[in-house]
Amino acid sequence: MPAPDTVHIQLPGDRNYEIRIGTGLLNEAASWQGLPKAAVAVIVSNETVAPLYADRLRDRLLGVYARVDVVVLPDGEQHKNWDSLNRICDHLLSQALDRKTVLFALGGGVIGDMTGFAAAIYMRGVPFVQVPTTLLAQVDSSVGGKTAINHPLGKNMLGAFYQPERVIADLDTLDTLPDRELRAGLAEVIKYGPIADASFLCWIEDNLDALLARDKAVLGYAVRRSCAIKADVVGQDEKEQGLRAILNFGHTIGHAIESGLGYGAWLHGEAVACGMVLAADLSQRMGLVPRAFVDRLRTLIERAGLPVQPPKLGAERYLQLMRVDKKAEAGAIRFVLIESLGRAGLHGVPDALIAETLVAHGAA
Amino acid sequence: MPAPDTVHIQLPGDRNYEIRIGTGLLNEAASWQGLPKAAVAVIVSNETVAPLYADRLRDRLLGVYARVDVVVLPDGEQHKNWDSLNRICDHLLSQALDRKTVLFALGGGVIGDMTGFAAAIYMRGVPFVQVPTTLLAQVDSSVGGKTAINHPLGKNMLGAFYQPERVIADLDTLDTLPDRELRAGLAEVIKYGPIADASFLCWIEDNLDALLARDKAVLGYAVRRSCAIKADVVGQDEKEQGLRAILNFGHTIGHAIESGLGYGAWLHGEAVACGMVLAADLSQRMGLVPRAFVDRLRTLIERAGLPVQPPKLGAERYLQLMRVDKKAEAGAIRFVLIESLGRAGLHGVPDALIAETLVAHGAA
Repeated sequence: MPAPDTVHIQLPGDRNYEIRIGTGLLNEAASWQGLPKAAVAVIVSNETVAPLYADRLRDRLLGVYARVDVVVLPDGEQHKNWDSLNRICDHLLSQALDRKTVLFALGGGVIGDMTGFAAAIYMRGVPFVQVPTTLLAQVDSSVGGKTAINHPLGKNMLGAFYQPERVIADLDTLDTLPDRELRAGLAEVIKYGPIADASFLCWIEDNLDALLARDKAVLGYAVRRSCAIKADVVGQDEKEQGLRAILNFGHTIGHAIESGLGYGAWLHGEAVACGMVLAADLSQRMGLVPRAFVDRLRTLIERAGLPVQPPKLGAERYLQLMRVDKKAEAGAIRFVLIESLGRAGLHGVPDALIAETLVAHGAA
Repeated sequence: MPAPDTVHIQLPGDRNYEIRIGTGLLNEAASWQGLPKAAVAVIVSNETVAPLYADRLRDRLLGVYARVDVVVLPDGEQHKNWDSLNRICDHLLSQALDRKTVLFALGGGVIGDMTGFAAAIYMRGVPFVQVPTTLLAQVDSSVGGKTAINHPLGKNMLGAFYQPERVIADLDTLDTLPDRELRAGLAEVIKYGPIADASFLCWIEDNLDALLARDKAVLGYAVRRSCAIKADVVGQDEKEQGLRAILNFGHTIGHAIESGLGYGAWLHGEAVACGMVLAADLSQRMGLVPRAFVDRLRTLIERAGLPVQPPKLGAERYLQLMRVDKKAEAGAIRFVLIESLGRAGLHGVPDALIAETLVAHGAA
């Protein structure tokens, strides 16, 4: 199955950019050429990733920019908030950096989302580049231009659609990824099968052991295919007016789990994995897919070492948390449901049916 | 001199909207028809304006939306910050309002900028409508899609380009405007003459007394002509890549005054008025315009009861404050200078020349 090393994102109004995927990209001079010119570049990273890769990226960028600053934020979803965002802005303003300054997001999804949001709002917009170092960020959050911070009352509630200049996904950075985070990233890889590509789901089932063993060629294919699917969806619907919502399969319940337990208790990918199991169950209860599909997806998610059992928050609490989700509109809570293997859509689901699923999984 | 009652803003990608200008618009049902449908509308206003107009707007909107909430913020530039912005977001989230919710900004520039920014980032974007109730907001801040909050280190440093669905500028709301705010609004009206329309400058000189006496027909012409000039500029350069910068005439020094004295000490229009006097002086020192033009502009600004004497902050402090301004780039501080009456452009100005102007006006 061939897949390109470079995935092209095409958006209206000349806003096209490349996702480059491969090994050794961090060290390759070409990765950093042809970006917007500026006097100063700023790498934003976290306490875990900065010691591993910030110096190397800084060295490479000093071949292009006269000055390269590094801003290091605390690590973890619980820090994806206004205070951390403001630390980026404080640095930019205290250094009087102008609106040509280029930001580089070096880290996982949290760093990418916050750096992207800071780039979106600093002086009403400066350029930024994504350098994702987790599997989850490489296959999901660094692609598509969704940036955000969390609010105590909901995940990713404040943000912007803002596209990077380029994404450099160096597979070598996955060498240092903890096992738990690798598995969390696989949740988003698995997601692309049921919503868009039945044969990719089969491929994941066949190659799961190699993925967990970090076989670089197999990981590379998974990242490229995931990005290509996401690029295709985002290219058709950047602002999530319709189709793009399918990328949120598993996210409605997933966000409720994250928010309900407090950000950081479960990894985002873990919450999404469990959310997919319940959303598949809802799809079956709505008469869209057979029970065999639900079992198949749960089996794969369990094999990947991801949770299939939601925390016991109570049905009322789940419903309350989901009602504040961005996909919600007045009336029935809307879920991305699987309509047939490889096809998904948004469906309003009656509260009673949601409660049934929650009870059946021991969540209520 | 005819001017339309409705000014049309045309932006790339079907993002067109209308600025409706006239008397009695708040009460007119047509003002609120044809906006995006939603279950809930939220009026954002401040402690000064809400008691005057919020109930009336709410009554009108209840003819269109099933529920209309009102969020009241403290009044003043010193409250144009993250805390106030977050009060809007807190309301939206605590009420679990969805991303179809329409926000209505009822107030001056501060309310418009903050409500627009909240609309830009809440769930990555909800629709909003501007209902400007100050002269300054009607001729400037409600037109053009610039939204922002201040940061302790600089004015309007965090924000977004985000366009409203419609602008309803009801001239009757100017009846309750304090004299000082009326004069501050005139600063932005005056601005459009030197940068874009020599004959409009003559018209303002001829009609200044009627403007100060709040002659509704004369005010209406001033608002319509100002909006038409701004719409023309913004239509050509929404994201301020070039031409749009001329709208910042007087703003580089103006922002330094506001930031240096602490937001709220001077009104924005007062700071801009004084900034225009100094920027005109710089234009003359750069050899672009004769001394007579500088005197003419200063005379008009004085007649309008606006300050022409900058606060004595010291040259070094002014230079430091201006270097962090959004228009600054590495190197010389850039000013919008008048190149000839009715034409302006961005020019890098040597620090020594800026210091000369500051000293000559007693600012250093």
